[in-house]
Amino acid sequence: MDYKEQYQAYLSQATSALEETCSRFLPEESEVCRAARYSLLGGGKRIRAVLVLSVCDMLGGNMAAAEQFCAAVEMLHCYSLIHDDLPCMDNDDLRRGRPSCHKAFSESTAMLAGDVLLTEAFEVVANAPASPLASVRAAQALGLGAGSRGMVYGQELDLKYEALAATEEQLRLIHRNKTGALINAAVQMGAAAADAEPAQCKALEDYAYGLGLVFQIVDDVLDVTSTPEQLGKPIGSDSENGKTTFVTLYGVEGAMDLARRLNQNVCQTLEENFGDKAEFLLRLAQQLLVRKN
Amino acid sequence: MDYKEQYQAYLSQATSALEETCSRFLPEESEVCRAARYSLLGGGKRIRAVLVLSVCDMLGGNMAAAEQFCAAVEMLHCYSLIHDDLPCMDNDDLRRGRPSCHKAFSESTAMLAGDVLLTEAFEVVANAPASPLASVRAAQALGLGAGSRGMVYGQELDLKYEALAATEEQLRLIHRNKTGALINAAVQMGAAAADAEPAQCKALEDYAYGLGLVFQIVDDVLDVTSTPEQLGKPIGSDSENGKTTFVTLYGVEGAMDLARRLNQNVCQTLEENFGDKAEFLLRLAQQLLVRKN
Repeated sequence: MDYKEQYQAYLSQATSALEETCSRFLPEESEVCRAARYSLLGGGKRIRAVLVLSVCDMLGGNMAAAEQFCAAVEMLHCYSLIHDDLPCMDNDDLRRGRPSCHKAFSESTAMLAGDVLLTEAFEVVANAPASPLASVRAAQALGLGAGSRGMVYGQELDLKYEALAATEEQLRLIHRNKTGALINAAVQMGAAAADAEPAQCKALEDYAYGLGLVFQIVDDVLDVTSTPEQLGKPIGSDSENGKTTFVTLYGVEGAMDLARRLNQNVCQTLEENFGDKAEFLLRLAQQLLVRKN
Repeated sequence: MDYKEQYQAYLSQATSALEETCSRFLPEESEVCRAARYSLLGGGKRIRAVLVLSVCDMLGGNMAAAEQFCAAVEMLHCYSLIHDDLPCMDNDDLRRGRPSCHKAFSESTAMLAGDVLLTEAFEVVANAPASPLASVRAAQALGLGAGSRGMVYGQELDLKYEALAATEEQLRLIHRNKTGALINAAVQMGAAAADAEPAQCKALEDYAYGLGLVFQIVDDVLDVTSTPEQLGKPIGSDSENGKTTFVTLYGVEGAMDLARRLNQNVCQTLEENFGDKAEFLLRLAQQLLVRKN
């Protein structure tokens, strides 16, 4: 199977797992759960889910457990988008070309839909067909990545530096928490499903944070070089808002140079630790670097 | 030790656990975590925490694990209060006589503080000094009680029936989910810390839902018979809002009769299953019935 076929295979595995999870944990009779499904099943690249599955696969782990863990991390990611779009946060009316959750439903329903997705993400992990130890390790990774020393802290920093000039160090800290921490949770959940060794977890952590940063730098570049049609969302919003980005710091070429250097490090660590088995994860990193949307 | 001393002993055990949890999981440098601490350490009866500890104690379980689980259930309860007070929900400016979280901080900070408490509650469970199986069972109980088939569903129903006449059956469904489900999560987390048998868990479930309903009926009665000074919050709000309560359905005397009958059932189940060891839990149910605030 080549890279694209493999990605599609993981993606359909993730989609099936999400649908099964919805029917078990998000009952149809609840309006809040219908709102959660609306946002959860609205598509997307599902990079986090693919990371859970591909890491577990690389390590020869328990794929049935990884399927549940990948659904959990997508639910958690989706809650963060719903709450982020609310009027008291970024106040975004559109998400992936459709009305955001509070526009399609109501503000209170959207808030509760986010709350329910966050709660059920952990319930899914606790009910996965995994050893209790693997579930506990996955829940630890998810909590660490999503909470006060991870994603929520990143959202706080992001709001703080919205109209404030940030240094490269501050920008890295924002993205490490806002994006990197949940990507790391995803790979660690894949590792948990495979009972990975500490050294493997460490190598995967370096990969995850490197990948998250490359992803963010390319995002900043696309925000000024792409078209709204290609990107599927408005462009130029960061520079209009006076936000510091890797492009405002280094220009388009400088930012892409940084992304390429980081990507090389990321790939090197991975090859040293996992050799040929890391091929899919290497290709994934490469694709994030050259992506157009 | 008599009942009151025992309650105080559990309460100070819970308070220590919460303080330790704050220092590990809610770092001071984050404004969001400071907001979470403001609401979390603002006092309260901490009935859910006391239930975790006393159930585990009755069953001769692992009290170190129960301490962490009791901190988790209080964090979860606190998140629900913060989100419930937000303008898009109940829009309450006061909580326990102090400015509610979004008034003391900001709306976005309060929403993130709720998100962080919900996330960290599960992280605390995953990091408790318990067997992996006990942690997984506690996380399952917490997820089930807090999520789409528990507390969040109860909040949805509560909003739905805000200005709509409800039957007794509908009122019971609201309270079973809104209050009962998290009380049941608390006793099941205590049971998980003691590796309880299924039959014990079932008896405790009946106790929890009965206790939750008695608690709610007495709440409805106090809303019309108490004074603002005694209750520490405005009275008469439910009847002003045209909300169906057990008092609007049956009057004060009828509602208290129902509460007493339910309480008798609750106590009987408990005595049959746990005998003398259930004394504290029996006294707790009795106290909820005669409480004045």
